[in-house]
Amino acid sequence: MSDVSVHLGANKYGKAENRVVRIVRDTPRHEIIDLNVTSQLRGEALVDSYLTGDNGLVVATDTQKNTVFAFAKEHGIASPEEFLLTLSKHFVSSFDWIEGGLWQAEQYAWDRILVGDQPHDHSFVRSGKATRLATVQVVDGATHVTGGLKDLTVLKSTGSEFAGFPRDTYTTLVETDDRVMATTVTGRWRFLPEAVEAGIDYNGLYEEVSAVLLSTFASVHSLALQQTLWEMGKAAIAARPEIAEIKFAMPNKHHFVYDLSPFGLDNPNEVFYAADRPYGLIEGTVVRDGVAEAPEAWTDVPTFV
Amino acid sequence: MSDVSVHLGANKYGKAENRVVRIVRDTPRHEIIDLNVTSQLRGEALVDSYLTGDNGLVVATDTQKNTVFAFAKEHGIASPEEFLLTLSKHFVSSFDWIEGGLWQAEQYAWDRILVGDQPHDHSFVRSGKATRLATVQVVDGATHVTGGLKDLTVLKSTGSEFAGFPRDTYTTLVETDDRVMATTVTGRWRFLPEAVEAGIDYNGLYEEVSAVLLSTFASVHSLALQQTLWEMGKAAIAARPEIAEIKFAMPNKHHFVYDLSPFGLDNPNEVFYAADRPYGLIEGTVVRDGVAEAPEAWTDVPTFV
Amino acid sequence: MSDVSVHLGANKYGKAENRVVRIVRDTPRHEIIDLNVTSQLRGEALVDSYLTGDNGLVVATDTQKNTVFAFAKEHGIASPEEFLLTLSKHFVSSFDWIEGGLWQAEQYAWDRILVGDQPHDHSFVRSGKATRLATVQVVDGATHVTGGLKDLTVLKSTGSEFAGFPRDTYTTLVETDDRVMATTVTGRWRFLPEAVEAGIDYNGLYEEVSAVLLSTFASVHSLALQQTLWEMGKAAIAARPEIAEIKFAMPNKHHFVYDLSPFGLDNPNEVFYAADRPYGLIEGTVVRDGVAEAPEAWTDVPTFV
Amino acid sequence: MSDVSVHLGANKYGKAENRVVRIVRDTPRHEIIDLNVTSQLRGEALVDSYLTGDNGLVVATDTQKNTVFAFAKEHGIASPEEFLLTLSKHFVSSFDWIEGGLWQAEQYAWDRILVGDQPHDHSFVRSGKATRLATVQVVDGATHVTGGLKDLTVLKSTGSEFAGFPRDTYTTLVETDDRVMATTVTGRWRFLPEAVEAGIDYNGLYEEVSAVLLSTFASVHSLALQQTLWEMGKAAIAARPEIAEIKFAMPNKHHFVYDLSPFGLDNPNEVFYAADRPYGLIEGTVVRDGVAEAPEAWTDVPTFV
Repeated sequence: MSDVSVHLGANKYGKAENRVVRIVRDTPRHEIIDLNVTSQLRGEALVDSYLTGDNGLVVATDTQKNTVFAFAKEHGIASPEEFLLTLSKHFVSSFDWIEGGLWQAEQYAWDRILVGDQPHDHSFVRSGKATRLATVQVVDGATHVTGGLKDLTVLKSTGSEFAGFPRDTYTTLVETDDRVMATTVTGRWRFLPEAVEAGIDYNGLYEEVSAVLLSTFASVHSLALQQTLWEMGKAAIAARPEIAEIKFAMPNKHHFVYDLSPFGLDNPNEVFYAADRPYGLIEGTVVRDGVAEAPEAWTDVPTFV
Repeated sequence: MSDVSVHLGANKYGKAENRVVRIVRDTPRHEIIDLNVTSQLRGEALVDSYLTGDNGLVVATDTQKNTVFAFAKEHGIASPEEFLLTLSKHFVSSFDWIEGGLWQAEQYAWDRILVGDQPHDHSFVRSGKATRLATVQVVDGATHVTGGLKDLTVLKSTGSEFAGFPRDTYTTLVETDDRVMATTVTGRWRFLPEAVEAGIDYNGLYEEVSAVLLSTFASVHSLALQQTLWEMGKAAIAARPEIAEIKFAMPNKHHFVYDLSPFGLDNPNEVFYAADRPYGLIEGTVVRDGVAEAPEAWTDVPTFV
Repeated sequence: MSDVSVHLGANKYGKAENRVVRIVRDTPRHEIIDLNVTSQLRGEALVDSYLTGDNGLVVATDTQKNTVFAFAKEHGIASPEEFLLTLSKHFVSSFDWIEGGLWQAEQYAWDRILVGDQPHDHSFVRSGKATRLATVQVVDGATHVTGGLKDLTVLKSTGSEFAGFPRDTYTTLVETDDRVMATTVTGRWRFLPEAVEAGIDYNGLYEEVSAVLLSTFASVHSLALQQTLWEMGKAAIAARPEIAEIKFAMPNKHHFVYDLSPFGLDNPNEVFYAADRPYGLIEGTVVRDGVAEAPEAWTDVPTFV
Repeated sequence: MSDVSVHLGANKYGKAENRVVRIVRDTPRHEIIDLNVTSQLRGEALVDSYLTGDNGLVVATDTQKNTVFAFAKEHGIASPEEFLLTLSKHFVSSFDWIEGGLWQAEQYAWDRILVGDQPHDHSFVRSGKATRLATVQVVDGATHVTGGLKDLTVLKSTGSEFAGFPRDTYTTLVETDDRVMATTVTGRWRFLPEAVEAGIDYNGLYEEVSAVLLSTFASVHSLALQQTLWEMGKAAIAARPEIAEIKFAMPNKHHFVYDLSPFGLDNPNEVFYAADRPYGLIEGTVVRDGVAEAPEAWTDVPTFV
């Protein structure tokens, strides 16, 4: 190994996947907020922790963890976005040398269990329908907030076609005017900074956007997953003025018509084989005209993969 | 390696995890049935396939796969239990030397997407709330059927205690009269053979049993997860005369009260750390008095793990 | 819900997946033993914990966890089998009403990191090649021990054929005299009780059996996965007199020849698509002639799935 | 929903996770190359596929899949980097409107099975030690190549400390001068464009860098994971002049000393509990001085998460 001259590039550090469950029990009718929180910090002054192992400015990842759990008590969790905002302000304001960071949360939804027809006061069943996402990024003195969801699996059994694509030496795909289309939606929407400043009903917005994404997926007659993605994003932005842009990653979860002809059977789109891999992977961003771009909002945020 | 004298013991073979999706599209209002089907066969005569590689009696796993998909068209899928019964009868009756086997299915539930307030005709969103299970076992000329579910995650934020346990050298656990109790239920119920014979509304039963399990979990004041398990099984058996017995595996998904005292904060069961491993694992069977035992029904069926 | 008369059937309870890592550091050359241990207890007297929530005889799962970690210090971990034996004896002898149980372990292998050509004293890299398995079952006063492995993925690029199978209406598979054969081996071998009694070099045996399984897979010209399974089991039993029987579950991980003919290309078994699902699933037991059967050794042990 | 004015932002599309296995069988001593390949394309002209569902320029994801498998035959797979380069050139040169894209590969390593002491000609066992990574990004007429690895789990049982960190209200962590340090390394190195142009022995480089990362992890007395990361990156860059920079994500996989004092036992770093979540997450980039920055090389490449 020869001598080499190097420097530290992009970096951050913290505690990942703090599984904090907050029960609100001020009345007999409890509430549950179930989060997976990751906190990571950045700052130029942290360079020595890498170069020489000097930990004098390293807010320990264990301290970040403690802060997450303590804040769940001190400040409560009104929404994942607001909880991450509170965390971000704490770290940046408490430690001079912490210039910013990335805070991420997943939220798992719970429904009340029905006993008879009554929703129970303190018993819940986890709804597996989607996982809510949120991030707060603090960089160069600015704060960026995103909401989102993942694991939202949808399928339409008709109303989807795919045709008109170019053909080359390696093209064997047959055009179709009726296919099953299925995807598992990951979507993240960036909030306008002025809306964040003014205050947002993050929970209400999440419910509304989720519903709009679903109903748009259902309603659009699809010519391609790209077009469906576009319409879903457009509808979300139309629904809520707080949203600046929305990014999607949508695997095309192929459902292949099983060839039953060797058995003397027709198969008019009735019996499908649901394949695992490979899968199409369609990614796109729908941006409201006129908003300021903010690529730094997305640094290290998993969106397209 | 010296010479050795051995013989073939328990065995079976087949095709696992056939992901068959059946769309019923006889009217514009489509239905979706989404299964993961495993078919495996047994028979004394198959011994030569192991001992000498003679495949003369080996109904190919690929043939079993084709049959699953073809039957989804020919016979439809009224319920996973009935679909597996149809498959089992086919293999045992079509091939003299196939004496029995084990057929298993998972079913994934889909909800209709709402557009406005209207459930859509052909667009669906996957409900992640639980996975339905079914098995058919044919052995010694008898047919055994089970239904079940897994991945049903439930939590109660109070109404659970754990105390009165013995203490030895290695006991440090503190007694508690108020804790969070959470589990992910796996349950499988065996149907009475005479009920199978008479015909069962498997789908209606599944919905009813699922609801009873949930409401019992919610309603029982828990002294231990064992007791909750028992009450849930008892309620299911009470609800449906077709059920002979029900087996449960219930991890105790620990939610630990986070110690906030170093930060000068109380934590009266408000902020929890949701742990991954280790976890309690409670397993038990509730059996209707007077029914004939049928251990062979459970051979190779994953229940307790 | 009508009144119903029920009783408790098979059950057990305990603490699952205790991730205990033992460092032996008596000399500067450290050793690492990395286990995932599950402890579960059975006893007729435990019935009241289910029926009435009386925990008076419930050795807490937390106590079982503490015991696992304490024993790693007090007794060390000579092998997973011996560690589980020590645990089992403790619980059965310390608590009158504990009649038996099932103890399971996974062991993860670590290699020493090479610095220059020298294996390092205290730095290790995890070998992902296979996971070692062990169980101890105590039932009716008898103790049964198994060893095993899982996650051992093997492939042969030729020397495998599949032909001569029967053809029916649903058969489309073409016979082949040259295919890729791949599987991920799960195998568990039961030790003869008298060998357990006499003492076994469990670690040496594991290494030898692993090597024999691999070399047999490689050497056998395969007419079917069933035959390969049989030969592997036979070779293991031939290699070690301590083994009474061995159970295998072997998925047939299909590698399909990709059809390149539309592109004017031959594909003489050179380019394959590695499929996920469905897969063949071949299960079988090879039993040494003359040994006593012990089905109770396998109760609740995951083998065939 | 009001009318809304939007435009398309960042996007790409293609086929993900093509599991291509290439057997080289020109001689009886076969070779196996086992890849998971993702191909995704970008181009301004593709905007209409999103906006109007016009697929006239959409090179179908199925066509991309076919190309991957066909190229495995036509061009072979000398290394994942070279295979992705060949794919990227094809798509960009064959379709005027395809301006660039991102191609990614994982490679799974296989060892020859030993029969006696001889490595077998055509039988292999999968080595689980690490997964090799590669990407090719074509953007604005430039081509960027990275190599890398993930799933490399390492542990040192001593030679690691963590002290000197600041303490605030939420700090409870005790300083330590001897702890277990473990991580699962994900690392990606970007090649200098001029080295790519000149040609690189990608396979040899991968082996050398992997070995250097391991031996550096082992040799460095660690004051913090940050410092270990830095030293590993520096050593890799020192070892190979082709590397411009290297990015790491390293979870701090906590191994906690189990408190055995309630049982009257010492625990001088001998018995550990290996925790799952939360975990530290340390990320950093080591950059060779004087190289041109290329942030566009990393667009959509999962590095820090």
